[in-house]
Amino acid sequence: MNTFALSTGFLSEIFTKASDNSAAYTVFRDLTIIIIAAKICGMIAQKLRAPAVVGQIIAGLIIGPCLLNLVGFEGDPNGLFITKMAEIGVVLLMFSAGLGTDLKQLVRTGFKATLIACAGVFVPLVGGTVLFMCFYGFSGWGTEGFFRAAFIGCIMTATSVSITVAALKEMGHLKGSVGTTIMSAAIIDDVIGIMVFTFVISLTDKSTSALAVVIKTLLFFVFAVVAGFLVYKAFKAIDKRYPHTRRVPIAGLALCFGFAYVAERFFGIADITGAYVAGIILCSLEDSDYIERKMDINSYMLFGPIFFASIGLKTDISDFDVSLIWFCLAFVLVALVTKVIGCGFTAKLLKFNNADSLKIGVGMMTRGEVALVVAQKGLAAGLVKSKYFTAVILLIIVSSVVVPIILKAIYSKYPDGDYKALGGKKIFKLNK
Amino acid sequence: MNTFALSTGFLSEIFTKASDNSAAYTVFRDLTIIIIAAKICGMIAQKLRAPAVVGQIIAGLIIGPCLLNLVGFEGDPNGLFITKMAEIGVVLLMFSAGLGTDLKQLVRTGFKATLIACAGVFVPLVGGTVLFMCFYGFSGWGTEGFFRAAFIGCIMTATSVSITVAALKEMGHLKGSVGTTIMSAAIIDDVIGIMVFTFVISLTDKSTSALAVVIKTLLFFVFAVVAGFLVYKAFKAIDKRYPHTRRVPIAGLALCFGFAYVAERFFGIADITGAYVAGIILCSLEDSDYIERKMDINSYMLFGPIFFASIGLKTDISDFDVSLIWFCLAFVLVALVTKVIGCGFTAKLLKFNNADSLKIGVGMMTRGEVALVVAQKGLAAGLVKSKYFTAVILLIIVSSVVVPIILKAIYSKYPDGDYKALGGKKIFKLNK
Repeated sequence: MNTFALSTGFLSEIFTKASDNSAAYTVFRDLTIIIIAAKICGMIAQKLRAPAVVGQIIAGLIIGPCLLNLVGFEGDPNGLFITKMAEIGVVLLMFSAGLGTDLKQLVRTGFKATLIACAGVFVPLVGGTVLFMCFYGFSGWGTEGFFRAAFIGCIMTATSVSITVAALKEMGHLKGSVGTTIMSAAIIDDVIGIMVFTFVISLTDKSTSALAVVIKTLLFFVFAVVAGFLVYKAFKAIDKRYPHTRRVPIAGLALCFGFAYVAERFFGIADITGAYVAGIILCSLEDSDYIERKMDINSYMLFGPIFFASIGLKTDISDFDVSLIWFCLAFVLVALVTKVIGCGFTAKLLKFNNADSLKIGVGMMTRGEVALVVAQKGLAAGLVKSKYFTAVILLIIVSSVVVPIILKAIYSKYPDGDYKALGGKKIFKLNK
Repeated sequence: MNTFALSTGFLSEIFTKASDNSAAYTVFRDLTIIIIAAKICGMIAQKLRAPAVVGQIIAGLIIGPCLLNLVGFEGDPNGLFITKMAEIGVVLLMFSAGLGTDLKQLVRTGFKATLIACAGVFVPLVGGTVLFMCFYGFSGWGTEGFFRAAFIGCIMTATSVSITVAALKEMGHLKGSVGTTIMSAAIIDDVIGIMVFTFVISLTDKSTSALAVVIKTLLFFVFAVVAGFLVYKAFKAIDKRYPHTRRVPIAGLALCFGFAYVAERFFGIADITGAYVAGIILCSLEDSDYIERKMDINSYMLFGPIFFASIGLKTDISDFDVSLIWFCLAFVLVALVTKVIGCGFTAKLLKFNNADSLKIGVGMMTRGEVALVVAQKGLAAGLVKSKYFTAVILLIIVSSVVVPIILKAIYSKYPDGDYKALGGKKIFKLNK
């Protein structure tokens, strides 16, 4: 008897949707289905030598509105709950990634990462703009049509490394020079991408000024350095007096959530960036491994599977317009290729070898919730139509499925030399 | 520098409520405040030799609508989220309690526990009915006034042992004969209490029949035995082949959520009872300690503090009617005293010594969300007025605050002899 026999027995009992989803207990049905489906698909993915994360996203597609429609998402009271759980999942993932950062390595790769990030924003921005113009025509500089085109470019800019992070973590390559470069470049890329996006928005809308965005971003980093220094000293004192006690990871979790909130609320920076910075603040603590281990248990038990499954759950292909197919395919292709070219070539120019340049280019290809957020904000500003959302979701799914597979293939052919030289630990494999 | 300095820095930044609480990131503000307040108050409570749980409830009172109003609850989009997180918290707690059950001990105490539970339902039921009649007069058998009185008795019946469980667990006495008797009696008490409540409801409402309730409850235990046997065999096979792997606690979590849902959805049994039964099914596994440890990390990091703080958060004393004060005080007093008398005297008759009888009586005094659920269902049936909710909330708070303190005092004066003889482990203190 195996896990399958175990789960099918339950699933048959649980299949019937409750009539009243507002009762608190109904959420347990959705959670049970997500946990079981994500674990089974994750295990199948691993059997097929693909990362577990891909299986978890596919699990979301299977149980979501696309196929079996077992778990409600949009418009369902529990869907709102799952959305917030997924948000916690991605924030925990980024915090954990920050905790695992080798700070010396980050400083060493900072210059290179900035150049890679700039190219990774610029090339897709131009690519997306040109793509839209190819499909719908060039209507002159500064016209509404031009901004519409530029906004399609904006959607393409923001790398979402959570998928890449999970894949690299699973393979044990997160702490290598390639992993750190990707992480650093993605963080800088996020900041630049959001600045570009707010710049485009501000040119059509008078409520936000480009200067305010730049100032807010700079202020966030000033805040992060000052608050981070004080917090680090406080944690070091607690850690020294009460090593390996519960209060250390609990305070760490509070810091993670606090920074996620403060970043988004007061500085307009994505919550995941705040959580990542919180992780970096604590990454030099002696107990950083201890905190990370506790976070990982929370992640892999519940929040991680929910986050990845929710990407699949969000997809609703019922109102898919056939005439849009060509645009969507071209959009995905351009978004992926421009990132690889922009980041990969810059990496190559910065004296990474061919394999490592390709790893960096591919690792930066993933898009995620930031692209959706940008698209939603464009919708609110009247710059983008809701029908283009399908293209964004398709990009997220394709990049999420394709990147871990390609990364795994490249790594198995060209192992990360630097990683072994640095004596990195396979931190995520402890409980497997 | 200590935790206080750390948290005040953040709190001042986080104090301003976001204008748009529908955005997913705003939940991080509430979570940060809850985690920090619960940890600080929990630590203060421990310094004052009271259980941390009391501090966490008081933390909820402080940050809730009663005092600082930092965290929204009723009517707030994030309040719904916190409610569901709290529900997961109490379910995880009961699952963990089930996992820690000594099954041989439960069978040994089964007969005694049933008698204690019956007395623990009957005495408060009569006490509550008589109390209401003393205040508002006796209007004759079978009249609406009689059912109103009987319903106040119903609200008093359901013991909610989660507070007692947490207190016993913290002290390391959960696995002793007293702990097991309380746990078993509370489970049986829950079932009998819900049957009595549904019986009273069914006498005024035609949509549920008393017979259906009895049959459903019996069917749940048949289901639990049959499904439990199959699930146990499946887990044993997985556990033997892949000991200490992630799939064991993940499958355990799915079982916990699945049973919580199935119990409530198909059998009308409280979700926490389902989770407890799921824990009992797995408690004889070799890896049950391993599963419990992983669950506990999820609990103490996030879900536990949220559950206990939410009890304080739920309390809104703004519409408190002065004329109700006497009724509320009498209600709380009668509810506490009838439980101690009912359960304590029965325990004494069953040859427990004086100290252990008192521990059992006091341990059974706690009321929780079940009492609120019963009251809410009475409101829907037109049997109870919303103004009596204050009395129920007061009962929950007073019993939650008072019981752990009394229990700790009794235990420090009369340590549990049986516990040491059984060689129980202080399972919950591992990471402290």
